[in-house]
Amino acid sequence: MIFDVHILGSGSAFPQLHRNMTAQFVNVLERHILIDCAEGTQLQFQKFKIKPSKINIILISHLHGDHYLGLQGFLSSMQLFGRTKPLDIYAPAPLQDIIYMQLKATGNYLTYKLNFHPLTSTETELIFEDKVIEIHTIPLDHRVYCNGFLIKEKIKPRRINKPACDIENTPIAMMHRLTKGEDWVQDDGRIIPNAQLTLDPVRSRSYAFCSDTKYAPSIIKIIKNVDLLYHEATFLHEMLARANKTKHTTALQAGEIAKEANVGKLLLGHFSVRYKTPELLEEEAKTVFENSIAVSDGDKFSIG
Amino acid sequence: MIFDVHILGSGSAFPQLHRNMTAQFVNVLERHILIDCAEGTQLQFQKFKIKPSKINIILISHLHGDHYLGLQGFLSSMQLFGRTKPLDIYAPAPLQDIIYMQLKATGNYLTYKLNFHPLTSTETELIFEDKVIEIHTIPLDHRVYCNGFLIKEKIKPRRINKPACDIENTPIAMMHRLTKGEDWVQDDGRIIPNAQLTLDPVRSRSYAFCSDTKYAPSIIKIIKNVDLLYHEATFLHEMLARANKTKHTTALQAGEIAKEANVGKLLLGHFSVRYKTPELLEEEAKTVFENSIAVSDGDKFSIG
Repeated sequence: MIFDVHILGSGSAFPQLHRNMTAQFVNVLERHILIDCAEGTQLQFQKFKIKPSKINIILISHLHGDHYLGLQGFLSSMQLFGRTKPLDIYAPAPLQDIIYMQLKATGNYLTYKLNFHPLTSTETELIFEDKVIEIHTIPLDHRVYCNGFLIKEKIKPRRINKPACDIENTPIAMMHRLTKGEDWVQDDGRIIPNAQLTLDPVRSRSYAFCSDTKYAPSIIKIIKNVDLLYHEATFLHEMLARANKTKHTTALQAGEIAKEANVGKLLLGHFSVRYKTPELLEEEAKTVFENSIAVSDGDKFSIG
Repeated sequence: MIFDVHILGSGSAFPQLHRNMTAQFVNVLERHILIDCAEGTQLQFQKFKIKPSKINIILISHLHGDHYLGLQGFLSSMQLFGRTKPLDIYAPAPLQDIIYMQLKATGNYLTYKLNFHPLTSTETELIFEDKVIEIHTIPLDHRVYCNGFLIKEKIKPRRINKPACDIENTPIAMMHRLTKGEDWVQDDGRIIPNAQLTLDPVRSRSYAFCSDTKYAPSIIKIIKNVDLLYHEATFLHEMLARANKTKHTTALQAGEIAKEANVGKLLLGHFSVRYKTPELLEEEAKTVFENSIAVSDGDKFSIG
């Protein structure tokens, strides 16, 4: 029951030898999702021994170079690797023309189907779902149109309370309907409430990615109770004025968001290159939210 | 009197941990030139401790991803580093729209002047000159419009043959004209030929970059006698059919070009990723041109 988040790049602005810019690989129940794709992301896949060919969904938060400039090369390499299965990209609308203009210039039309889903809404929306997961946008407040992404398991079936069903002699034929939450209406009209015969479902796990954004309490209702939150923390709080001006968040503010949203764990990233190491940012976030971690490229977090 | 060629990337198609894709930094008499700019080139500058801010001319051979996809990030980083001095780019015409469409999407207009010089000619042309150097295109034969580049010192002044001038009592006032090749026409009409009073100029040095191209003997007349030739050698000659189909050159053919052009030294690069090490390619080129070297990222070649 895999739900893993791999940090491929945790820096901002421009690449550093020890820290590349934003990209993450999420494996949720064998759905392979790439979130953002900074220049150099292809090489991060190699470095951390993750096969990029598995990716079938790409989510791009916004069109600043440190979040998308590795995409064109990634698409090109997928072709070189002989990809034939479709690839779905969810990204700000202008990226579509950027991709196709470059494909035209290079004369390299893709041999696989690219399904581009332009994002334009400033309200949260469900952009992907299948039988077991959903992906929602998290509208962020940055200098350009920007979304975070909430990836969550769908609500799972209720679990049969076998002893309770035995007492009531609940027929086998009713079990599937009970897992869907139905009450048992017996032939004589007597109703046994679902809650008496079932247990709550196994918890649905969730991950929220939020980068880049100004401190935005408006996201709290969307990310409430997620197991894992990645939130940008570009600056220490002593640089609040700069954070506000550039529409970024301080580590303290990221901690506050995590606390208010009651998340399980907070991952901090997108550190300004002025910080050689992110210890101070982590310490600052911990003053308001203890379970905070400043991530490094190559880190992997599993939601159990 | 620097004339150095730094190999920033020597591979092809997609990045590898030990070999990035094409980019070179040329320092010729403190003119700082970047030739091609594959994804990841910014990081190669850091890795090899070269300051990218010095670059004032960028030459792009063609619009395949492994030769230009690092440019947008490079331009963006120049801005982040506070660049104000202009930057001149010589590249296939469609790149201009690709750059500006992305600047528009990111909302990051450059704070320095970008002088874009679109290349469209299929004949060799002089694209840049100042007091001491010239840059010419070398039309190549690839799957998309593609140029190599010839960077050369201008012909230097003839050198005064002091003993010869002393014998003839050549006046000081005449010296500058002699260095320009003029004969000395004396007051009585007697002519002393320039060759009697001067020595040949110090040799003008030259470097030719040729990637990507099918075997193209048409370039020999342009690159004749260059000190240093970088020529792509994507395949071994046993893969000639594939080289022809994809419009690349074999190592043997690169050696033949070097030999026919009578170059000083041949640098081989742009190796197919199928070759884990390029020894066999170097050996093959050496069978026809002994002074051949398969380059690695980080190599530096000085023209003395």
